[in-house]
Amino acid sequence: MSNQRLQLFPLTTRVENAALTIGGCNLTELAEKYGTPLYIYDAATMDAAVQEYHHALQEHYPGASGITYAGKAFLAVAIAQWTQRHGLWVDCTGLGEMRVAEAAGVPREHILIHGVNKSPAVLAAALAQAGTIVVDNLSELRRLVELSSPDFRGLGDLGSLNTPNLWLRFRPGRAVETHAHIQTGQEDSKFGMSAAEIAGAAQVCRQQGLPLSGLHFHLGSKFDDPAPLRQAIEDTLALAKEIPLPADWTLCIGGGWGVAYHEDDLPQPPVEDYIRFAAQAVVETCRRAGMSLPRLHVEPGRSLVARAGVAIYRVGTVKRTAHRRWLLLDGGMADNPRHALYGARYSALPVERPDRPNTGPAWLAGPYCESGDVLIENLPFPDVQEGELVAVPVSGAYHLSMASNYNGATRPAVVWLENGEARLIRARET
Amino acid sequence: MSNQRLQLFPLTTRVENAALTIGGCNLTELAEKYGTPLYIYDAATMDAAVQEYHHALQEHYPGASGITYAGKAFLAVAIAQWTQRHGLWVDCTGLGEMRVAEAAGVPREHILIHGVNKSPAVLAAALAQAGTIVVDNLSELRRLVELSSPDFRGLGDLGSLNTPNLWLRFRPGRAVETHAHIQTGQEDSKFGMSAAEIAGAAQVCRQQGLPLSGLHFHLGSKFDDPAPLRQAIEDTLALAKEIPLPADWTLCIGGGWGVAYHEDDLPQPPVEDYIRFAAQAVVETCRRAGMSLPRLHVEPGRSLVARAGVAIYRVGTVKRTAHRRWLLLDGGMADNPRHALYGARYSALPVERPDRPNTGPAWLAGPYCESGDVLIENLPFPDVQEGELVAVPVSGAYHLSMASNYNGATRPAVVWLENGEARLIRARET
Repeated sequence: MSNQRLQLFPLTTRVENAALTIGGCNLTELAEKYGTPLYIYDAATMDAAVQEYHHALQEHYPGASGITYAGKAFLAVAIAQWTQRHGLWVDCTGLGEMRVAEAAGVPREHILIHGVNKSPAVLAAALAQAGTIVVDNLSELRRLVELSSPDFRGLGDLGSLNTPNLWLRFRPGRAVETHAHIQTGQEDSKFGMSAAEIAGAAQVCRQQGLPLSGLHFHLGSKFDDPAPLRQAIEDTLALAKEIPLPADWTLCIGGGWGVAYHEDDLPQPPVEDYIRFAAQAVVETCRRAGMSLPRLHVEPGRSLVARAGVAIYRVGTVKRTAHRRWLLLDGGMADNPRHALYGARYSALPVERPDRPNTGPAWLAGPYCESGDVLIENLPFPDVQEGELVAVPVSGAYHLSMASNYNGATRPAVVWLENGEARLIRARET
Repeated sequence: MSNQRLQLFPLTTRVENAALTIGGCNLTELAEKYGTPLYIYDAATMDAAVQEYHHALQEHYPGASGITYAGKAFLAVAIAQWTQRHGLWVDCTGLGEMRVAEAAGVPREHILIHGVNKSPAVLAAALAQAGTIVVDNLSELRRLVELSSPDFRGLGDLGSLNTPNLWLRFRPGRAVETHAHIQTGQEDSKFGMSAAEIAGAAQVCRQQGLPLSGLHFHLGSKFDDPAPLRQAIEDTLALAKEIPLPADWTLCIGGGWGVAYHEDDLPQPPVEDYIRFAAQAVVETCRRAGMSLPRLHVEPGRSLVARAGVAIYRVGTVKRTAHRRWLLLDGGMADNPRHALYGARYSALPVERPDRPNTGPAWLAGPYCESGDVLIENLPFPDVQEGELVAVPVSGAYHLSMASNYNGATRPAVVWLENGEARLIRARET
């Protein structure tokens, strides 16, 4: 069981001297140096994840391609700098993420702006700083027309305006299998435009001279069956035939590929299966329709970063109630709300002697005054003592970006592990 | 319908010149001055809520009594100062809330410390600053014994140590009807001690000379049927007979009384019903058992503050999908995660001309890249235009205290309304 659990951890995870190490760093030492709860990110695991996408695209897609990193999964200056070592675009939603990308020196052409209700301030900043804006709806397009008009006074301070490329977000009326909160493509989703609206938007772009250069759709986050992509790809390519697009237009197949969070989810959903399926669907549909291949852009979401992240907590209290063994940790729903929000199912290992035999089920919960503040339910686990450390794998995505200060909690420190060295990339909040 | 919705808003809410005012302040002007999303708190509504508790306790409980304000619902210096104008205790969980109480000048005897897994730092601070610590478990008690021992070196910097009163948290093995995430008293809850553990803890207190002065239980948050309280009160009083307690010991019946969030929840659950029921249960049980009356302490939770708070958002985009009308707002799950966490059901009114007839259902959602970022589903609502303001009532509790920076969102400004004047009590996060 424990060995299987190790497959959820970063690729560099080892058991050395009966203790977990990641990226050559001893987790107990890291916890002592930086305190707990502590989040670590393993560079080698992130590198490998992005290489898997690059290789799969080269192998299976004969046209040009690109990859976007989802800033909403977790963004820090060091992470944005890492994206640039791999040629990724960075998806920014809102001014906060744009400022991080800017501070990291992400070049304009790699900044992509998402959002279903972009504020006027975000749109103005996007016009000034972004390479690509994914237009969600007709109201937004109307505002972009106003803001990018040369005689619009509000942009006096934007300097020489170089309008970003526009992609239109299509709502294909279908979604992938995932939690309802993270399905996005269904018929009544709040996101995107219908086919008729897309056609209207494309006409507005032509009339106004706006650089429409792509179509985007997004079926949902954390899916592991690519089948629903086929119809969405066919519908989007059919739409692309109807509207004026440049020869090198981009088809962006949004939606984040899943990862295994729990040993019962193993093996990892293969990235290659996802990319091969999508690439073949695009190639076959274009061939049947007599279209040249678009540039294919993917948004791998959590699959680039989730497994690289591990959360380390200290067990403060071990408590037995009528039918449960509780391990009460020093972090919980404030740094990881995913169990409370989606019922997400996690696993864990003790940091010291992780190969101890499991002695019975445990419930791992946080210190906050709320029964929903549980991280893990009913997980076979060894006997552990108060004061021990536990490591929760697959903590790299949608934890810290959704973190709160509930009960006055401060957000954890974040450490980057690379070549046996640990570097603090976000200080603990004070 | 709209008139009924007004009953969800603060007591001072009026429609003047066809626009909503609260505390004599025009909401449109507030939104223009402070920006949106904006949270307002109406002092008169909070005053009335606490008076209702004071009156009900005086009317129905012949012994001494007290009231605790739940810092976790929403805490700011101005709120903590307000609690002291009404003689309330302030429940602090963690160092962050303790610092706010301290900054507000809350006297030591009014600071009460809650928490299921209090860190050593919290325990040390509690020993130095709190009037009462609610001891959750035996490990915590053991740590308190160590920390408060005169020869414990770690406390050299605490100065003259005046050990706070201790209450023991009893897990009565039953809960009130509410969302499972906010039930707390059930048999396998992570909170509190069994009857046998309480007896053991009381013995430790006696042996170590620690000032045990009360018993606490908590059945859950947001309940509106007091019936389950009776058995918990009987069980706790039976336990109190078995353990050494001072004559003026305190019985704290934790658990937050509910409020109406939606017009379908009206009328408001009467505070007097709750207090009368609980007071009678205590009086009757004590009489039957031949016990003198304990000091009765209540924790009204959200019912002190939820209705006083209103969230004001601006509609950025109106979108129609196959079967839905979406009003996309400039705030959502980042400032109010309660719909995403619990499926909480809210209502709303437009700020201008709130008495317009409803023309059909609307879905009010936030700007964040997640389908779970919906605040209100399927609410009959008037036609509104992009750029209009909407006000969401009953936003005073468990919104801002659980808020996140998801998608780089910044936390909203908070304004206190009293006697026709608006005062910024928390600046918008930058």
